[in-house]
Amino acid sequence: MIELPFALSEYRARLQAIRAEMARRNLDLLVVNDVANQHYITGYDGWSFYTPQVVLVPLVDEEPVWIGRAMDAAGGLLTAWMKPENIVGFPEDHVQRADRHPMDWIAAWISRKGWGGGNIGIELEAYYYSPKAHARLTAGLPNATFHDADLLVNWIRSVKSPAEVDYLRKASRLAEAAVRAAYDAIAPGVRECDAIARIQAAQVAGAPDFAGDITALPPTILAGENASAPHVMWSDRRFGENETVALELAGVVRRYTAGLARTLQLGRMPAKVSDTSRAVLEGMEAVLASIRPGVTAEAVEASWRRVIERHGLKKESRIGYSIGVAYPPDWGEHTISLRPGDTTVLKPGNVLHSILGMWMDGWGIEVSETILVTETGCETLTSFPRDIHVKA
Amino acid sequence: MIELPFALSEYRARLQAIRAEMARRNLDLLVVNDVANQHYITGYDGWSFYTPQVVLVPLVDEEPVWIGRAMDAAGGLLTAWMKPENIVGFPEDHVQRADRHPMDWIAAWISRKGWGGGNIGIELEAYYYSPKAHARLTAGLPNATFHDADLLVNWIRSVKSPAEVDYLRKASRLAEAAVRAAYDAIAPGVRECDAIARIQAAQVAGAPDFAGDITALPPTILAGENASAPHVMWSDRRFGENETVALELAGVVRRYTAGLARTLQLGRMPAKVSDTSRAVLEGMEAVLASIRPGVTAEAVEASWRRVIERHGLKKESRIGYSIGVAYPPDWGEHTISLRPGDTTVLKPGNVLHSILGMWMDGWGIEVSETILVTETGCETLTSFPRDIHVKA
Repeated sequence: MIELPFALSEYRARLQAIRAEMARRNLDLLVVNDVANQHYITGYDGWSFYTPQVVLVPLVDEEPVWIGRAMDAAGGLLTAWMKPENIVGFPEDHVQRADRHPMDWIAAWISRKGWGGGNIGIELEAYYYSPKAHARLTAGLPNATFHDADLLVNWIRSVKSPAEVDYLRKASRLAEAAVRAAYDAIAPGVRECDAIARIQAAQVAGAPDFAGDITALPPTILAGENASAPHVMWSDRRFGENETVALELAGVVRRYTAGLARTLQLGRMPAKVSDTSRAVLEGMEAVLASIRPGVTAEAVEASWRRVIERHGLKKESRIGYSIGVAYPPDWGEHTISLRPGDTTVLKPGNVLHSILGMWMDGWGIEVSETILVTETGCETLTSFPRDIHVKA
Repeated sequence: MIELPFALSEYRARLQAIRAEMARRNLDLLVVNDVANQHYITGYDGWSFYTPQVVLVPLVDEEPVWIGRAMDAAGGLLTAWMKPENIVGFPEDHVQRADRHPMDWIAAWISRKGWGGGNIGIELEAYYYSPKAHARLTAGLPNATFHDADLLVNWIRSVKSPAEVDYLRKASRLAEAAVRAAYDAIAPGVRECDAIARIQAAQVAGAPDFAGDITALPPTILAGENASAPHVMWSDRRFGENETVALELAGVVRRYTAGLARTLQLGRMPAKVSDTSRAVLEGMEAVLASIRPGVTAEAVEASWRRVIERHGLKKESRIGYSIGVAYPPDWGEHTISLRPGDTTVLKPGNVLHSILGMWMDGWGIEVSETILVTETGCETLTSFPRDIHVKA
């Protein structure tokens, strides 16, 4: 058994919160397809979600059940807290075949267990849960009524416990180490791929007393002609003499992710970069001054918008989101977004990654912080000089 | 514009093959949800698939269209070969909201384009395409008839061109470098995470004349108590004195993936490990002797099975699959599987990752090769001593 990241009491509290919401919605069973939610509930951890994988949470007081590929049940026994009988493998002869589907088998298992009727809540927009899987599951459970339960667990995840915040603090240390590694590695003539190798090494090797995990998004380096395109990947391109390099990095410990974006200027800082950076840094101050319990997500965004409008700038996309447990392809929790129209009222224990990215024509700046909402205001978990780092 | 991995003529040939199959199935439009297929058709490359993203291929002779998040259209202009008007961004205010969905917008776009009627083929089991996305798309296109087109493009991908094989040869060099890095780094007392950092650095930094890309599955190291669980991730566990360490690694160049698994023995090799390895290595010889055009996938597996049965061993799962372009979470192409019941007849240009993994109780061995089917037989693209590497 690999050591669980949390005490069993913490998993029980999570289940209790999930069941309270299930009861409120009159759900008898929750089918959890989101890999991060599966981990949050069970501790299960493995790179096995390329075949169908579900966690079942009954409203009744029984253990959740993990079902995945037979080969990966061994990993379930090592990583999840439930009894062995609640780690279930579908047969290997159901993997990626045209004539049968793992969800046929899983539906039959649910029926045999006596959970195939009543109201079933299910996550309909989880990564790795396909329309075909859903069609086969619902066809196999004709006596159930299905209800969209997207984000039910995610909203519970949006308030972090002290133990979760501890992991996010550790993750922040690794995010800082990743930015330091980038500042060290990036120089004119160096290839992007060589810089990424050093950044990832810092992320993964971790600290002397804990490991780093894979980041849900790979390191992003935006420079040169790619600078205006926020999610283009690295190549063997070499950094130029006077490039502005935007870095969107993270640190991850036991799947808990802290994001940290910074900008590096090689050579001399052009006036437009320094002008924009002043606006962005002032905007971050406004964001941090506005975050406290009772404030809405959109009010935080408005505080940023007021600053950059004064500087004559505009940004269409949101400036932050809830962050926590994360598996590829995304480290956002898909709940709170710092943008107009999001009237979520912030609570102590929320953790937000506020990322102020200005992607201009041919260059860009990014600055972010991972921010804990405290009882009285907020605290930046990431701690790293915020100014654009000039490397002459 | 980032340099395309292939000549435009190669993209035209791909489109021609896809359209021939569309015509055979009487499809007017193909909605491509699989990220690897999107890249194969358009060259588009970015870590943007955490929001909905499609490629549309009309049967009529017009360019395909990429549609994704507005922010990522800039990346489309840099990486895809189509005209700018065929790189389309859905508005930022559709990202991850309860009251609207990108697929509503995409359905409306398809209708405006005049592609909203007739027979639409769609990939229903692509990663990152959700039941909710599909429900919104079909609701938005009431005049279309939808047909499952899973694997239509994947089967075309299963025969590689010489230019694709060139990338797979380069990728094989990086896979070999990754195994060498693992052999160097792993020793008793070393933490798994520190070994992974060195392995990933070798994968990503690449060669002097080309970069490495992210691998679709992260490096897998199975040792100690994890050895029986094929997809458990690394931690800060330290390697023990006499552990058998199974490594499942890859190299990736311009998204083309070569897999390479090897096994490292720290200290003395136990008799059971050396007995099993003899069977596995003999099994690999049998696999390689059997692969040639005209042979079925299941016949290749049978040749392996005969060998290990003679050694008193058994393996439930398949022993290989088609490999090529890959994005997380999987590098298999989901077409050819080396297992009983797969009657696919092998053709020149097929590339198979044959992985012989024996996960026993508390220890495991893995050996693999990435294998090109040639006109007369096969060639292992990966080239690395196959024996268990003993590090005393």
